[in-house]
Amino acid sequence: MSYNLLKGKKGIIFGALDEKSIAWITAIKCHEEGAQIVLSNAPVAMRMGEINKLAEKIGAPVIPCDVTNNDDIENLISKTMEHFGGGFDFILHSIGMGVNVRKGKHYTDIDYGFNVKTNDVSAVSLHRVLACCMKKDALNEWGSVVALTYIAAQRVFPDYSEMADAKALLESITRSFGYHYGIKKHVRVNTISQSPTRTTAGSGVKGFDGFISYAEKMSPLGNATAEECGNYIVTLFSDLTKMVTMQNHFHDGGFSFTGVTQAVIEQMEK
Amino acid sequence: MSYNLLKGKKGIIFGALDEKSIAWITAIKCHEEGAQIVLSNAPVAMRMGEINKLAEKIGAPVIPCDVTNNDDIENLISKTMEHFGGGFDFILHSIGMGVNVRKGKHYTDIDYGFNVKTNDVSAVSLHRVLACCMKKDALNEWGSVVALTYIAAQRVFPDYSEMADAKALLESITRSFGYHYGIKKHVRVNTISQSPTRTTAGSGVKGFDGFISYAEKMSPLGNATAEECGNYIVTLFSDLTKMVTMQNHFHDGGFSFTGVTQAVIEQMEK
Amino acid sequence: MSYNLLKGKKGIIFGALDEKSIAWITAIKCHEEGAQIVLSNAPVAMRMGEINKLAEKIGAPVIPCDVTNNDDIENLISKTMEHFGGGFDFILHSIGMGVNVRKGKHYTDIDYGFNVKTNDVSAVSLHRVLACCMKKDALNEWGSVVALTYIAAQRVFPDYSEMADAKALLESITRSFGYHYGIKKHVRVNTISQSPTRTTAGSGVKGFDGFISYAEKMSPLGNATAEECGNYIVTLFSDLTKMVTMQNHFHDGGFSFTGVTQAVIEQMEK
Amino acid sequence: MSYNLLKGKKGIIFGALDEKSIAWITAIKCHEEGAQIVLSNAPVAMRMGEINKLAEKIGAPVIPCDVTNNDDIENLISKTMEHFGGGFDFILHSIGMGVNVRKGKHYTDIDYGFNVKTNDVSAVSLHRVLACCMKKDALNEWGSVVALTYIAAQRVFPDYSEMADAKALLESITRSFGYHYGIKKHVRVNTISQSPTRTTAGSGVKGFDGFISYAEKMSPLGNATAEECGNYIVTLFSDLTKMVTMQNHFHDGGFSFTGVTQAVIEQMEK
Repeated sequence: MSYNLLKGKKGIIFGALDEKSIAWITAIKCHEEGAQIVLSNAPVAMRMGEINKLAEKIGAPVIPCDVTNNDDIENLISKTMEHFGGGFDFILHSIGMGVNVRKGKHYTDIDYGFNVKTNDVSAVSLHRVLACCMKKDALNEWGSVVALTYIAAQRVFPDYSEMADAKALLESITRSFGYHYGIKKHVRVNTISQSPTRTTAGSGVKGFDGFISYAEKMSPLGNATAEECGNYIVTLFSDLTKMVTMQNHFHDGGFSFTGVTQAVIEQMEK
Repeated sequence: MSYNLLKGKKGIIFGALDEKSIAWITAIKCHEEGAQIVLSNAPVAMRMGEINKLAEKIGAPVIPCDVTNNDDIENLISKTMEHFGGGFDFILHSIGMGVNVRKGKHYTDIDYGFNVKTNDVSAVSLHRVLACCMKKDALNEWGSVVALTYIAAQRVFPDYSEMADAKALLESITRSFGYHYGIKKHVRVNTISQSPTRTTAGSGVKGFDGFISYAEKMSPLGNATAEECGNYIVTLFSDLTKMVTMQNHFHDGGFSFTGVTQAVIEQMEK
Repeated sequence: MSYNLLKGKKGIIFGALDEKSIAWITAIKCHEEGAQIVLSNAPVAMRMGEINKLAEKIGAPVIPCDVTNNDDIENLISKTMEHFGGGFDFILHSIGMGVNVRKGKHYTDIDYGFNVKTNDVSAVSLHRVLACCMKKDALNEWGSVVALTYIAAQRVFPDYSEMADAKALLESITRSFGYHYGIKKHVRVNTISQSPTRTTAGSGVKGFDGFISYAEKMSPLGNATAEECGNYIVTLFSDLTKMVTMQNHFHDGGFSFTGVTQAVIEQMEK
Repeated sequence: MSYNLLKGKKGIIFGALDEKSIAWITAIKCHEEGAQIVLSNAPVAMRMGEINKLAEKIGAPVIPCDVTNNDDIENLISKTMEHFGGGFDFILHSIGMGVNVRKGKHYTDIDYGFNVKTNDVSAVSLHRVLACCMKKDALNEWGSVVALTYIAAQRVFPDYSEMADAKALLESITRSFGYHYGIKKHVRVNTISQSPTRTTAGSGVKGFDGFISYAEKMSPLGNATAEECGNYIVTLFSDLTKMVTMQNHFHDGGFSFTGVTQAVIEQMEK
């Protein structure tokens, strides 16, 4: 089912690894809603992934981009503008990598070089992309930028480790850049804080299964799926949400504003 | 322009006083998006207002309801279900009245009887309506309820007076009832915290002009209009935001996350 | 052990029911820190309680006061000023009653008359007391007011029911009145959001045991005791915190900023 | 005047540049309250500063430390433990440097190498120090760590630039490490979000004068001074606040919870 909510809009979607990815599913939804898309991902992720299948399905070019490299970003933005014949309207930033987590380093014993990389890939990359877009005047008036985040930016989920700090940084960049791009060109920038989701990336986190079932029990509506997240992103890219900016929106079935549920209390009494 | 986002949906809209009202404008948008609507307002407001013009325009029945009176609410919900031939999908609560403000009583010297009335009309009314809907099983699965609020619930705007406390109460009821209705029937409940808006109701507040221009200067995108608010409400009533609940969403052009702007600093230096 | 932190200070402490009460323990601490105190409680609570034992111990007069009655409050403030020979420096508001909870009414089916009473006793009472103090110029420059609240004002704890809404209202009144009393007389007003505590009042809440053990498992430092809460209140009454106002301070061993702990995850996997 | 609140306690204070510094003033207050102190600062800041005057005054050794260098930190912690003959009780982190700000780079055009340095000095340094303390078991049970932050971490103050993001990162590290150190050793970790303060560091920021007067007008109690901040820090280092952790505390005369004041509205109408 389609509403043509994004008819005539154009945008870049980062981070479609495979068909479980939120970015993958969102790309399909945006396409169905009438948008034209450019796909991008890290060269290394593209080798693992199956992004070309997606590209074919939605008729989108794929432009590799290491988001920690300004030259790569400039290349991406230039090629995208060439492809679209001018500016574009939206960006989905669905990118994150916890290097210390991958390397099995505990939060209290991280490697600071890895940490710089984690923050660069997961948070500063949003700044790099927006700065490049601003320099090239790539985003159209009232454009919309969405980055995916997680509630660990507000409250501690110990296994999420340094990624919590990276997400806090990402959300701050969202506000800061949202201010400047808002004043300059009415571009809005927001984050969506999504339920834990069984993507290929998410599944890698230690204790993920125990955690996802806790989140399910703690959410009055249950955990939000990747599919539902894609729907929500579509609304934020549409013209119906023009005055929404510099915010973090929870998309989590009520998890964030639930202190405890009957289901969790019962489990506690076992 | 219409997307058919609310095709087949039915709902009640409270608080359409005249054509400047957010509720009025939202009712038109919901209608354009394919929804069927029942309009309601306080008997006294209806005498002042021009709701029948709106009713004709969108083919909606008007059912008066004093939202501090359970019998009135029961009558409204029953009649609405009769009209729709069953349950319905959304409610817009755009109701508020600061009795002490009207009577010129300063916040530090309020009349507590008036204050009970203020809280009842502006906040507890949401509880009354939802409790009645739950009892009658009036809202369909995945229904959506939106109430309008203001950032004075988080930070002090002195002229907003006791309405700030009423809005804090309203936002808490939103979370509390959102939990229970979410678990029971997947109904979601949210508030939208809107920019100061030149409605007939808003204009009555003392110092409103000075304040609205301050808010404009403090919002990277400028103040959000009633029209834009209506658009945003449509997204929250649609099926694209099913997992969003128990939250307060700022619809304010970035005001809420802006500490100061260049424009305000310059004004300060005058 | 005493630091003389409150030497020369005078204040009113509301809500000392018995020796488990936070107010009771705080009164003793304030006394030890050099303060003079007036004790107050509802007439009905005083009949049940043992406040006279406390009064003797710390040499404090007891002045009954129904905090929903302006005459009672005026009498209390007048008598207190008489007793102290002028203005005073601090107030502890440790008052709350959930009438619907007591009557066994579920949140989705509350009696609205009871609800008015709940809000009046638990929240509006703070407004009444401060308004009376302001009228009589009862609080000295840089006075300090603390009210006890609970995190249910931010996130849903279903068994806490309508008290959550009352606490949200209390916290808003804290901000609103804090603004006006701050500007007028540098009086600061704050809330403390305390861990669930095994007081006589607290124990009455349904599911309290399961919940207190959940909170313990979710707090990196464990639940805060009434004793520790008393210590914290002393700092907020002292001259060392003069610029802290209009805030809610969590005193909960880290519960509020913890999303999940290892201990809870393990319990979930059982 | 002294209360002996920190009698027997030992700690490290980072960042005392000159007698206007919050760290400088806090060191004196901690000393007066009975604490023994080790002073530390960056080698380069020490050359500019007058830290030796302070050191003499309070009988504290000075140990230089580049907080972006793990060897320096290890040396500092080892020497401190040697000096104290074992573990210690508190740390004040009053360190920050916005490299891009200094170099005159606008937020939308920052150098990413400089940005890594900004984040490292201003935020990751707290992680480095705590990780080293944990490894060496340097902090005693119920130790207390305070870092200074600014409200730009929550709302945009455009001239604060990349420092806003660094402070958001700092506050996240506070929560994350607070969790782990809390569980391991009951050490609590908090930030204080202080009013803009006329320190030598603060004064360097562009538009600081216009801004400080705006903050003054927006704070019901006025801006908090460095002196008052020192007092507040003392309470957080004392045994009276043991269960307070993982939080950000505003010390700002009410600025953070004030949306607008009469004084600002009047200025707007000029």
